[in-house]
Amino acid sequence: MNMMKEWEGFVPGKWSNDEIDVRDFIQTNYAPYTGDDSFLETATEDTKKLWEKIMELSKRERENGGVLNADTKIVSQVNSHEAGYIDKDLEKIVGLQTDEPFKRALMPFGGIKMAEQALNMYGYQLDPTVKEFFVKYRKTHNDGVFDAYTEEMRHARTAHILTGLPDTYGRGRIIGDYRRVALYGVDYLIKKKEEDKSCLDGEMVDTKIRDREELSDQIKALKALKAMAAKYGFDISKPAKNAKEAIQFLYFGYLAAVKDQNGAAMSIGRNSTFLDIFIERDLKNGILTEKEAQELIDQFVIKLRIVKFMRIQSYNELFSGDPTWVTESIGGMGVDGRTLVTKNSFRVLHTLVNLGPAPEPNLTVLWSKHLPENFKKFCAKVSIDTSSIQYESDDLMRPEMGDDYAIACCVSCMRVGKDMQFFGARANLAKCLLYAINGGVDELTLDKVTGKPLQVGPKFAPILGDGKLEYNDVLDKFDSMMTWLAGLYVNVLNLIHYMHDKYSYEALEMALHDTKVRRFFATGIAGLSCCVDSLSAIKYANVYPIRNEFGIVSDYRIEGDYPKYGNNDDRADEIAVWLVKTFMKKIASHHTYRESVPTMSILTITSNVVYGQKTGSTPDGRKAGQALAPGANPMHGRDSHGALASLESVRKLPYEYSRDGISNTFSITPNSLGKDED
Amino acid sequence: MNMMKEWEGFVPGKWSNDEIDVRDFIQTNYAPYTGDDSFLETATEDTKKLWEKIMELSKRERENGGVLNADTKIVSQVNSHEAGYIDKDLEKIVGLQTDEPFKRALMPFGGIKMAEQALNMYGYQLDPTVKEFFVKYRKTHNDGVFDAYTEEMRHARTAHILTGLPDTYGRGRIIGDYRRVALYGVDYLIKKKEEDKSCLDGEMVDTKIRDREELSDQIKALKALKAMAAKYGFDISKPAKNAKEAIQFLYFGYLAAVKDQNGAAMSIGRNSTFLDIFIERDLKNGILTEKEAQELIDQFVIKLRIVKFMRIQSYNELFSGDPTWVTESIGGMGVDGRTLVTKNSFRVLHTLVNLGPAPEPNLTVLWSKHLPENFKKFCAKVSIDTSSIQYESDDLMRPEMGDDYAIACCVSCMRVGKDMQFFGARANLAKCLLYAINGGVDELTLDKVTGKPLQVGPKFAPILGDGKLEYNDVLDKFDSMMTWLAGLYVNVLNLIHYMHDKYSYEALEMALHDTKVRRFFATGIAGLSCCVDSLSAIKYANVYPIRNEFGIVSDYRIEGDYPKYGNNDDRADEIAVWLVKTFMKKIASHHTYRESVPTMSILTITSNVVYGQKTGSTPDGRKAGQALAPGANPMHGRDSHGALASLESVRKLPYEYSRDGISNTFSITPNSLGKDED
Repeated sequence: MNMMKEWEGFVPGKWSNDEIDVRDFIQTNYAPYTGDDSFLETATEDTKKLWEKIMELSKRERENGGVLNADTKIVSQVNSHEAGYIDKDLEKIVGLQTDEPFKRALMPFGGIKMAEQALNMYGYQLDPTVKEFFVKYRKTHNDGVFDAYTEEMRHARTAHILTGLPDTYGRGRIIGDYRRVALYGVDYLIKKKEEDKSCLDGEMVDTKIRDREELSDQIKALKALKAMAAKYGFDISKPAKNAKEAIQFLYFGYLAAVKDQNGAAMSIGRNSTFLDIFIERDLKNGILTEKEAQELIDQFVIKLRIVKFMRIQSYNELFSGDPTWVTESIGGMGVDGRTLVTKNSFRVLHTLVNLGPAPEPNLTVLWSKHLPENFKKFCAKVSIDTSSIQYESDDLMRPEMGDDYAIACCVSCMRVGKDMQFFGARANLAKCLLYAINGGVDELTLDKVTGKPLQVGPKFAPILGDGKLEYNDVLDKFDSMMTWLAGLYVNVLNLIHYMHDKYSYEALEMALHDTKVRRFFATGIAGLSCCVDSLSAIKYANVYPIRNEFGIVSDYRIEGDYPKYGNNDDRADEIAVWLVKTFMKKIASHHTYRESVPTMSILTITSNVVYGQKTGSTPDGRKAGQALAPGANPMHGRDSHGALASLESVRKLPYEYSRDGISNTFSITPNSLGKDED
Repeated sequence: MNMMKEWEGFVPGKWSNDEIDVRDFIQTNYAPYTGDDSFLETATEDTKKLWEKIMELSKRERENGGVLNADTKIVSQVNSHEAGYIDKDLEKIVGLQTDEPFKRALMPFGGIKMAEQALNMYGYQLDPTVKEFFVKYRKTHNDGVFDAYTEEMRHARTAHILTGLPDTYGRGRIIGDYRRVALYGVDYLIKKKEEDKSCLDGEMVDTKIRDREELSDQIKALKALKAMAAKYGFDISKPAKNAKEAIQFLYFGYLAAVKDQNGAAMSIGRNSTFLDIFIERDLKNGILTEKEAQELIDQFVIKLRIVKFMRIQSYNELFSGDPTWVTESIGGMGVDGRTLVTKNSFRVLHTLVNLGPAPEPNLTVLWSKHLPENFKKFCAKVSIDTSSIQYESDDLMRPEMGDDYAIACCVSCMRVGKDMQFFGARANLAKCLLYAINGGVDELTLDKVTGKPLQVGPKFAPILGDGKLEYNDVLDKFDSMMTWLAGLYVNVLNLIHYMHDKYSYEALEMALHDTKVRRFFATGIAGLSCCVDSLSAIKYANVYPIRNEFGIVSDYRIEGDYPKYGNNDDRADEIAVWLVKTFMKKIASHHTYRESVPTMSILTITSNVVYGQKTGSTPDGRKAGQALAPGANPMHGRDSHGALASLESVRKLPYEYSRDGISNTFSITPNSLGKDED
């Protein structure tokens, strides 16, 4: 492969030697920046005017009840819409999800019922022809899942021991390597996929047939991407020639993804340093000024800020809003010791100043103690001013993930273009403990037919009588119930992801991955601290069951005190470690779809409130309906030994058993850390 | 399970003891008939009038160019149409494929392009909305197959070494057990499918998920079947109460199948004796006369005669017409030695007299030397009068298949409701031999890019020079090439059937099968005798290659004579036996889709002409383009030692290596067999 003429000025390497290797391009070409933020420019007049228009549209959207306009007929696909603009004269980076700004797209492949419900919620009516067609001839992901669910699965879902399953919405958590569009152009990406496809030969077992068909769909999606860009007047068949094109091409890649998929998290990857290389080249060549560079980045970020989907009420409740999780991962260190911070890392964060604070894109700094001091200071300053930066430990993730991973959603790390994740929501372990006590009967849900408590889990022997709960007896029963729950959970997810691939395959996003991709099978747990404290209470205090009119244990009387998770007390913390390890081992013992690598997370951030509402009283003294703690947090107010002790407890949780992330929600006032800025 | 009230008068048995077992019902209840045909009645006036209307419609259809009317908008599904009638007052058995007689249904799931082409052929335009929906959002079987085909597969298809593959049309060859609808009613069938589904639990591997989804689709199809019947005023949720209902319900089952699927062969099974039980009960109860019984059968057969599909030119060419293969298997012997011939076997054949001869339904007598003499005589008489009966050897099939199998299409036997077949068309072995000689290069097809002969098979060493072909050398090369062809063939079929299940699953037909069904993986060979004679010529005569301008062998010079297959000469016949065994063994060595049982057939009946057109000159002296012999026939005119010798050669072919059938087309004049009727 010859160096393409668009690559003039770049240092060649493995990336240019007939190999898709964006990381190698970055490593070979980027310029680490250790200076300060003094080079940064304010927003241009055009950007300001454009942003004003966005603010006006946002206002009108709010006034209109949350949605300004919605497609009811055009089914969103990569190339489904004509070009749309906010204001063509002001826009340096173009491309909208539909043909008008703030007009929400119709995305029925996850589920036509949800698409219709979402429209109805805002007073729109789904086009009857579209509805009829999907109902009669085109199954959706949701249809497929519910066709295949077992009764036990449906019960577990109704009772919320498994919660937030991506069976009514797109699974998300897949990050296309959108940089490839800019660096290689689409024709080359198609060529490489054709090559991969021709290698998939030999005995045609089901999995190979599926892989071949998916590659065809990927190639078609890339062609559609080219056609979409052409509508905006861009030929993206070849590599980007300059920084403006690089940003534009990369954004087209991402835009195609959000037109194609309404995923729970549509993260964008790790692009800042990659783009810096193009900007540096243009600056060097004198065809771009810093002001113009910032303008491009500001306008790119504006586009990411206005990514919107039509969603239903229950989704918004679960996620406490309508997040899109356009996570951009910034900074971090290279495995060679150089920092990956560039001037563009500053520019991207500086959009929070130029445009004001915003939750999206979810700007996430990959934090390392080795980051340049100037960048650390700048991050701190922007954080203080805008409260809009997320931080994650690069030092923790880099050893496993290398230096070209990105965060999907809030904490899930994956190597860009090389890994993807089957998102798996959560199993409620606090509820699982209650099932152990009640022999698989749900403590809150009634059987619609019999009117009695619903048998959700297996009919294992329950705790009998009203005597003090014996720790070893409860633990033994809990272990069996976790074995059941882990198996059911994995099977539910196997089924969900099979159907998602079948009915709502992310062809465009996967086209921007290596064909031989590593797949993570992401599970999650909720109610960790509640479950740990409950076990601790049973072990160290005296806990007596209280039965309701159906004879099942619905509450607990606790005599004495017990060690609580979150106080750096090993007696409780060891239970937490045991619990994480045990459940993960049970998960990993099962067949997982497409030879995916099982992982686990402890990371509810908001949904712990909903999960708590669906969980009966627990042996730790928590009453039915009260919130669980988020993620790996101690139960609210029980971490009485100070912040450090609380953090120490969380720190003990074994990351290697919870590779998909451990979250700890921790609010502090500036004064706690020392003096304020002044 | 209690005897249902509709079963009054039937002898209970396993079939009525909460088990779907139609064979047991038949065995427990049927009355063998050894009498003659004197009881038969002529057609009623209503039947005659109805048939006249059909004849008039047929005439108008011919005048209209082959199609009288066609749906361009309503996609055919089990319950897609309102009730349709020919003449409500005359019709004793109701139900049409669409809402009007002779109006062809729109069936795009096999392939929207074919559906459109078929419409265009007859001057109709596919509704643009339907087209757009399918092209954009609903892949079809055909789309899926071509997405997954390898280049080698496409080449093999273009060059016609694999021919007639069901990749552009429905695979057919699946016989629903339509009797179940009449005997059990649809509610019970749904109940049993629900039970089967609930048993499919445990580790959710892909195949289990697929099976669960398919069962859901089957249950939905059964519900649609009930709704379809309700439009005609029938409640088929319960068993049929009398013969009229039994025939009507059974026909509704079949009607639903042909509304749901446009299969290459939509055979109906083995129903005559089953229905006889209902007729006998009604006759006994005095609620039906023989005249009325014949009327019901005549009118049932009228309905089967007018089953029609929209098909494209190339399909009609391949099949020399537009067959629907509504094969009804009649008679045969039971494994207990009783004949399965009943009065109704007579009635069904008698429709050929009452209504006149017709190719459809394909009335097939399962022949045994033990059939009652009166029935044999009757068959002979009807055959002589109408030339419309097919015969197959029950004595050959019964040991393997038992006594409740039926013929799908022309010769494929399967146990009704217990077996299904993945239809696999044919591999051309004569052409494979030419590939062995030319190192995988096709002798007729040019590469569109290079203009040179197309490399289809692997680049094995070809025969070099112009010297006499050496038998062992050719045989060695042929063996390697057959190994390649068998592998490719199986892989093509794996892929086709995977996609058919994915995009055009026969939910209704499979709902009328046991859930745990045996699947046959049907392959077929063409060009047997041509290939055998070619090898014989190389071995026993002197064959010299003649090369064309490209240097490939395109013709042969033969010195001397050689033994030919079809003369009971073991020198040739042994090659035929070796060939059948060898190719089948190679087929069976591969992974076959869904753990299906590989079978083979030697049964081209008409397509041998088309196959011959695509095959170059062969070493037996046959010139390029000349027809191959049909099925297992000797090459035309070469069986010079009389009919018996010819049949002896065919008889040597090992049925156990060609379980899906061996056909021999054999025309004789009545005089050859002795005196004529007078």
